[in-house]
Amino acid sequence: MDGELPAEAFLRQVAPVGIGDTGDAQVDVDRDRRCGFPEVVFAQGKTAEAVERIFHKSLEHGTDVFATRVSDEQGGRLVAAFPAGHYNPIARTFRVPPREHGAPRRVGGQVTLVTAGTSDLPVAEEARETLLWTGAEVRMVQDVGVAGPHRLRAHLDRLAGADAIVVVAGMEGALPSVVGGYVDSPVVAVPTSVGYGASFGGLAALLGMLNSCASNVTVVNIDAGFKGGYVAGLIARNAALARSGVGREGHPPT
Amino acid sequence: MDGELPAEAFLRQVAPVGIGDTGDAQVDVDRDRRCGFPEVVFAQGKTAEAVERIFHKSLEHGTDVFATRVSDEQGGRLVAAFPAGHYNPIARTFRVPPREHGAPRRVGGQVTLVTAGTSDLPVAEEARETLLWTGAEVRMVQDVGVAGPHRLRAHLDRLAGADAIVVVAGMEGALPSVVGGYVDSPVVAVPTSVGYGASFGGLAALLGMLNSCASNVTVVNIDAGFKGGYVAGLIARNAALARSGVGREGHPPT
Amino acid sequence: MDGELPAEAFLRQVAPVGIGDTGDAQVDVDRDRRCGFPEVVFAQGKTAEAVERIFHKSLEHGTDVFATRVSDEQGGRLVAAFPAGHYNPIARTFRVPPREHGAPRRVGGQVTLVTAGTSDLPVAEEARETLLWTGAEVRMVQDVGVAGPHRLRAHLDRLAGADAIVVVAGMEGALPSVVGGYVDSPVVAVPTSVGYGASFGGLAALLGMLNSCASNVTVVNIDAGFKGGYVAGLIARNAALARSGVGREGHPPT
Amino acid sequence: MDGELPAEAFLRQVAPVGIGDTGDAQVDVDRDRRCGFPEVVFAQGKTAEAVERIFHKSLEHGTDVFATRVSDEQGGRLVAAFPAGHYNPIARTFRVPPREHGAPRRVGGQVTLVTAGTSDLPVAEEARETLLWTGAEVRMVQDVGVAGPHRLRAHLDRLAGADAIVVVAGMEGALPSVVGGYVDSPVVAVPTSVGYGASFGGLAALLGMLNSCASNVTVVNIDAGFKGGYVAGLIARNAALARSGVGREGHPPT
Amino acid sequence: MDGELPAEAFLRQVAPVGIGDTGDAQVDVDRDRRCGFPEVVFAQGKTAEAVERIFHKSLEHGTDVFATRVSDEQGGRLVAAFPAGHYNPIARTFRVPPREHGAPRRVGGQVTLVTAGTSDLPVAEEARETLLWTGAEVRMVQDVGVAGPHRLRAHLDRLAGADAIVVVAGMEGALPSVVGGYVDSPVVAVPTSVGYGASFGGLAALLGMLNSCASNVTVVNIDAGFKGGYVAGLIARNAALARSGVGREGHPPT
Amino acid sequence: MDGELPAEAFLRQVAPVGIGDTGDAQVDVDRDRRCGFPEVVFAQGKTAEAVERIFHKSLEHGTDVFATRVSDEQGGRLVAAFPAGHYNPIARTFRVPPREHGAPRRVGGQVTLVTAGTSDLPVAEEARETLLWTGAEVRMVQDVGVAGPHRLRAHLDRLAGADAIVVVAGMEGALPSVVGGYVDSPVVAVPTSVGYGASFGGLAALLGMLNSCASNVTVVNIDAGFKGGYVAGLIARNAALARSGVGREGHPPT
Amino acid sequence: MDGELPAEAFLRQVAPVGIGDTGDAQVDVDRDRRCGFPEVVFAQGKTAEAVERIFHKSLEHGTDVFATRVSDEQGGRLVAAFPAGHYNPIARTFRVPPREHGAPRRVGGQVTLVTAGTSDLPVAEEARETLLWTGAEVRMVQDVGVAGPHRLRAHLDRLAGADAIVVVAGMEGALPSVVGGYVDSPVVAVPTSVGYGASFGGLAALLGMLNSCASNVTVVNIDAGFKGGYVAGLIARNAALARSGVGREGHPPT
Amino acid sequence: MDGELPAEAFLRQVAPVGIGDTGDAQVDVDRDRRCGFPEVVFAQGKTAEAVERIFHKSLEHGTDVFATRVSDEQGGRLVAAFPAGHYNPIARTFRVPPREHGAPRRVGGQVTLVTAGTSDLPVAEEARETLLWTGAEVRMVQDVGVAGPHRLRAHLDRLAGADAIVVVAGMEGALPSVVGGYVDSPVVAVPTSVGYGASFGGLAALLGMLNSCASNVTVVNIDAGFKGGYVAGLIARNAALARSGVGREGHPPT
Repeated sequence: MDGELPAEAFLRQVAPVGIGDTGDAQVDVDRDRRCGFPEVVFAQGKTAEAVERIFHKSLEHGTDVFATRVSDEQGGRLVAAFPAGHYNPIARTFRVPPREHGAPRRVGGQVTLVTAGTSDLPVAEEARETLLWTGAEVRMVQDVGVAGPHRLRAHLDRLAGADAIVVVAGMEGALPSVVGGYVDSPVVAVPTSVGYGASFGGLAALLGMLNSCASNVTVVNIDAGFKGGYVAGLIARNAALARSGVGREGHPPT
Repeated sequence: MDGELPAEAFLRQVAPVGIGDTGDAQVDVDRDRRCGFPEVVFAQGKTAEAVERIFHKSLEHGTDVFATRVSDEQGGRLVAAFPAGHYNPIARTFRVPPREHGAPRRVGGQVTLVTAGTSDLPVAEEARETLLWTGAEVRMVQDVGVAGPHRLRAHLDRLAGADAIVVVAGMEGALPSVVGGYVDSPVVAVPTSVGYGASFGGLAALLGMLNSCASNVTVVNIDAGFKGGYVAGLIARNAALARSGVGREGHPPT
Repeated sequence: MDGELPAEAFLRQVAPVGIGDTGDAQVDVDRDRRCGFPEVVFAQGKTAEAVERIFHKSLEHGTDVFATRVSDEQGGRLVAAFPAGHYNPIARTFRVPPREHGAPRRVGGQVTLVTAGTSDLPVAEEARETLLWTGAEVRMVQDVGVAGPHRLRAHLDRLAGADAIVVVAGMEGALPSVVGGYVDSPVVAVPTSVGYGASFGGLAALLGMLNSCASNVTVVNIDAGFKGGYVAGLIARNAALARSGVGREGHPPT
Repeated sequence: MDGELPAEAFLRQVAPVGIGDTGDAQVDVDRDRRCGFPEVVFAQGKTAEAVERIFHKSLEHGTDVFATRVSDEQGGRLVAAFPAGHYNPIARTFRVPPREHGAPRRVGGQVTLVTAGTSDLPVAEEARETLLWTGAEVRMVQDVGVAGPHRLRAHLDRLAGADAIVVVAGMEGALPSVVGGYVDSPVVAVPTSVGYGASFGGLAALLGMLNSCASNVTVVNIDAGFKGGYVAGLIARNAALARSGVGREGHPPT
Repeated sequence: MDGELPAEAFLRQVAPVGIGDTGDAQVDVDRDRRCGFPEVVFAQGKTAEAVERIFHKSLEHGTDVFATRVSDEQGGRLVAAFPAGHYNPIARTFRVPPREHGAPRRVGGQVTLVTAGTSDLPVAEEARETLLWTGAEVRMVQDVGVAGPHRLRAHLDRLAGADAIVVVAGMEGALPSVVGGYVDSPVVAVPTSVGYGASFGGLAALLGMLNSCASNVTVVNIDAGFKGGYVAGLIARNAALARSGVGREGHPPT
Repeated sequence: MDGELPAEAFLRQVAPVGIGDTGDAQVDVDRDRRCGFPEVVFAQGKTAEAVERIFHKSLEHGTDVFATRVSDEQGGRLVAAFPAGHYNPIARTFRVPPREHGAPRRVGGQVTLVTAGTSDLPVAEEARETLLWTGAEVRMVQDVGVAGPHRLRAHLDRLAGADAIVVVAGMEGALPSVVGGYVDSPVVAVPTSVGYGASFGGLAALLGMLNSCASNVTVVNIDAGFKGGYVAGLIARNAALARSGVGREGHPPT
Repeated sequence: MDGELPAEAFLRQVAPVGIGDTGDAQVDVDRDRRCGFPEVVFAQGKTAEAVERIFHKSLEHGTDVFATRVSDEQGGRLVAAFPAGHYNPIARTFRVPPREHGAPRRVGGQVTLVTAGTSDLPVAEEARETLLWTGAEVRMVQDVGVAGPHRLRAHLDRLAGADAIVVVAGMEGALPSVVGGYVDSPVVAVPTSVGYGASFGGLAALLGMLNSCASNVTVVNIDAGFKGGYVAGLIARNAALARSGVGREGHPPT
Repeated sequence: MDGELPAEAFLRQVAPVGIGDTGDAQVDVDRDRRCGFPEVVFAQGKTAEAVERIFHKSLEHGTDVFATRVSDEQGGRLVAAFPAGHYNPIARTFRVPPREHGAPRRVGGQVTLVTAGTSDLPVAEEARETLLWTGAEVRMVQDVGVAGPHRLRAHLDRLAGADAIVVVAGMEGALPSVVGGYVDSPVVAVPTSVGYGASFGGLAALLGMLNSCASNVTVVNIDAGFKGGYVAGLIARNAALARSGVGREGHPPT
């Protein structure tokens, strides 16, 4: 049956989709229904005014608000405009707790967040804020880089049974491989730009993680704490929904 | 309480761990218990004899057998040695169906495997073989590269409700971003070396996927059909276990 | 009016789109109407059988046939299967003259194809075959690399008045900049992998062309004779349609 | 007839060419006649005085004035020196409307300018200013990145019938491929340095665009809003001249 | 005897290991016993408070203190908090002489530190401070880059008999090869980011050293004065222990 | 005392140095005295005849013979010409046992050679052959990659007390960091080109090792089993000489 | 006097220039007069027939013949067609001694050609053949890599007084820096692809030479023995002409 | 006669060589005799005091003084300390005219310095200052980038007869190829970091120049105006000495 759309697909395509137009931005207010979480604002390179307009548009549509790469200047303005919001200057995130605008608290699973060193903190914080926004419960294992091998082993119980594990590491980026060898959870590896010289801004850690000999390791962009947290949070949410017996809405994507 | 191991961790460390020694290889026969799936053999650069020895060692320990990057020469030898095995020369994989050596069929979830073009077939086949080995049920959406935008939209129903989605694409590697915008599943992006010139052996696709503006996209190595299938299969297995009400074994990792 | 589709867009989306399904490929038989030219087959990495199936599907839908990166093996098979077709082993292209299957000859404009050296011939031939397929009239200026500066100047009249100019060059890739300084046509620069050492497979030429100080130079992939010819042919076709007073169909894209 | 120049070419070479010498710069005051538009000044790395001298020399020769990469300091000085000029600090451009110095308004075609996100604004503005300078009519489609796939589809009518389309995108740079699949216009892709980590200052977007599977996509340098606008404006101008029945001057290039 | 740990290894694993927990950092206070020297703090990207907490924790455990990549701000704070400490602002190191907290002076060997140019001083100073901390005796040969070939030859006697040689060089990084040809000591090459243009931040020197035709040259990271000094100091310490007839503790690693 | 050479240095410079001239090669027959081991022949890119001539020249001067990167063709010829020699086709090395030509057996120390996987065997064999040539006693720990973390721990006793440790690993190259955390020996890391995709021929492993967070890790070139073995053998020889109470010859270098 | 050509320049531009047209190639038969040497044919990627046609065209115009990158197949054909020619299969060059076709022997200067190792021979041979073709007298210094530092010093007299020095080296490419420090001649450095691993096909040597701390070192492409020889031969020819009191023809360039 | 030094070489080696020791720097005061010009100071990364000390040491030995990469702070201090010196803040050079300290004015040849654009001025100035220091007579051809092709042709007479030509260009770096095609002089190409995006800090220009199809082009480092000027000045000096009938001192190098 070449070239024809099945009726079901037809209906999906003609359904009105949610776009919130702020003049210069097209806010994807339908994303929560389609993708499980609302749209997140990448604040870098936007004016504070533009970010604020997007926030208002999201709130109008009953969607909660989360932004990353928020500069100090943007953060100050957003705190003033949305007093109930939470600005984390180390993570450079801004979020408004879901309760404020009536959204039900999300169902979240269990995620363990592992860091190689204390210099990786800003990226780890971005991941942690994102995980909290997704509704996940977060267990921390900090400063367990591979050159002190007994440090990770002392915390193996915090890895057990996690729906997903996020590992944040710079320099040679070896920690995800080691973590991956201990667990039956997917490991989302976040390379950081911590290092110097032939780290090449995190390239060494990125390549190390991509070439990980542990089969359960996938990778996101350098310093992408947000994306690491998002994917782990999504995996955990889906597992939690499965455990709850509810499952995800059966809706096919639009 | 600096420097002390909790008793629980102590016990885990002293438990005899499973290592199958073949002389030149240390087969990790404990991995199934620890990581959810048995060890997989990376056959590239090994002699056919060495691969065969590892297979025998695995079977001795009651573990099933899966190998990737199997050359034609290795494949011929393995087919002769293990007649019940399945050799896929396009995927370059060899596996022995679990039933042969008594292992229970694995609980697997639902994974959709999407390919951008027919030239990506070998990598997609490696992913598909891996997914089948993990026990997942696989739905295929083939040849839906982004420059023919209605092709993907005609198959959106096959994306809906998947536990995980694997997207295999070369050239600019844009397909995972587009797929990611339609679904609430994690998307595991597998860049391929299909292309020429400034594709630089898949680097363009890899970078494109790492920089995906879709938040639910993680990435594995270039041409890593195996790893893409493995991680998606692991996510799907964990979701299926959650749905079954059994959950994963509560064991903490060793 | 957030989130609503205008009626016109609605109608476009529900129109049946043309997909020719060959089992493993989704042939985009609607592309001629949408994009001005039919789909072109990238034969590299496909089996000869798969290419042949795609050709039959295209011909069924009344679309003519053009393939690039055709290997000798594929070429032999296609010549046998489609005797009216034209196989150019230097260009590695295969096309069936439009007349054979009743398509009207395309309206084409005027394109000048310039090459830096005789070693660039295979890429230039791919561009020339593509241009002929688009219906363009092609003027050639060959072997006029920048180190023999009077060679290009002796052929300036062939550059004048072209709707588009394709410049194929390897090594330092300087020729498009020099050509660009003489004309009021867009220049499509095609870097080639001709060279050695720090040419890095055409990277030097690519970077040179991207950094061209001539404002009218755009760039395609290394060795992408096809794409260079395609874009130039498309610009020329649109100009020819404009000159003819007919213009392109007013249809908005689907 | 080796080694001889045809008479026509001879005459072209001996015609006095227009060079305006400012001491340290050779202003190409003949470029309008030869290339369709006057020379544009790349202000970066020049002193404000040098830019001003070039402007005066251009105006002396009856050529209008356009400069890019104008710093705040240079902008302030130029605004003071040329009060009728238009300084766009986001685009970092300065132009004097053609009318001021008697030049006829240029014949321009129709160009659609598409952006992936609001962070791409500075590059898009440089493209827009350049397009206006070329005389083109510009339609905008903003913030339609590929991860919100319905956003572009809601604006397909603005793509239809354009003489050329400029697509400005950072991160994975996938938008030109998607746009290219909908239209029969040439697409000029402008990668931006928007992103972080493995974006490598726009390299990811650049490579993605160069490897685009859409055949009608050509590429310019990273953040080269000017060049994207220039080439699109040139294609549109030539098409508009063709539609007007006048055509370009028949002059062969010099 | 697959899968069993020998008793000796068992005992090692169950021994309480030294971890000093500061809240966000896990100080490896067992490292001196295990690795020959205490843990060194990489101060970059840490808050001054965090560094200070780690120092206190180390001193509590009777370990001496050494930190690298200490910023001016961190340095000021540490000098105030630990008046007996030595802050070297050129090397960006901070160390507390071992005597202060009762540790026996370390047994150190003989190391020669060679620099190519005076611009390499900061990296060389980091290496020298590290060597002094390891207890090594350091001989200096400064500013003997290869283009003044008699300069090195005038100081060959300072190379003779060293337990290890550290060579610090930027630009083309050729000096280690030349030094290596004169001696029977291991040469630890430290590439620096001194240079410009195609030095690419020290990449040229790094690659040069990795490709050294002298067989006794190994390499550390760009600007890694610390690591160069550490490894040389460790080799020298082991040699000095061997000469002393005492040798290293026979303990197997944990 | 600017510009003067001390008498001692003067004498060293005027001493006749040992150069064995074969016509096209200058054999450095003095290297044993100067550098601790005789010159080693890099056979790649040389004709078999040239290698044979160099061997004869070395033997004439009483120096023993060792060559690396010996091709099958070269190997066959050398075996025929030097029947007492030992050709290892996996390591691609050829050496003549020192006893044959009367040289005293070298004093060697204790080196542990660790490999991540069985695919790294050729590089490990080159290292092992080199170590044997240096006189070192070699302990092997094979196939202990980081994703099976208990495999290395089962062999920690073979790491203890080594004069130097060579770690051979491809893919992400994480093993040296983990080994380094257990020992007080210098670790010479040898990255291999084992891997695929973003391994980029061993670049990932190389960068990972250069950025190792373990302070005692230095690095040699990709696949440089020879250099890894050489440096480790040199460190071990010097330690063994120190233990023997003899020490190295006091001679300053020439 | 903006925009006018001086009369002298006018005359030069209108002079008939020498182009020999072979159909697909434009032979620059005027180059000898303009550039000091005739055009050289880059045979790579050309058919043997095309090379032969170019040779005939050159000989017709009284120009002698030199080709590089001549494959074995091309070489065989050329030897048959031009029996007086000299084919060097190691250098992959073909030249016809000038005497054959009546050209006067060129005035050449004195060039020293230095190689780092015997594996660099093919590149060095290409340089030597080129130098002989330019008329230069060539002194050889072979196999004097920097790790055997006394080898170069033993041949310093062959460096003295050269009009130019060509240094051919792979691996770390350090030799030009060392040579440069001894002489008052320009040093043309030719990096070779000899090496492995992080040599990256000669990139390491190239970067090393570009960053040379010796001020008199310039660089050509990797493996560009031809260009190294050409430039050195040109410098030497000009010096020889100066010494002869004749000087170069006073002609300004065309 | 293996291993012996000829008497002549012996004498050269034992001659006292000129090293001026400033404590942390070894000033090569013998370089003028050996290399034709005195040592030049690379001021970057040195303290102003260190530069001043080196200057005093050079003047003590009767050598004149030239420094590059002089910062504003260093420049201010040097101007105060050496009032007769000439500080060029655009070139960032400092030199003391030779006459001041009695050195005879150098014999210099004729060099033409060509620039592509006015943004390349700082690098061109560094080259010009260096050329003047070498004693060369400098002719300038400015702002003749390849996209305005008649601009260079209007100044061909300034290229004729030069002993060497320095071409300074950024962006695509095509100008040296075009210049090279007109002349029988060696062309020293200096890539600059002028550009943006895929210029990658001058890499594009560098690669373009290395791959130049003009045989007489050699290359120096990015932004290396000094080295470009130095080598051209050296070639010109040697030619001028040849023309003068004096020639260079016959001394062999030391």
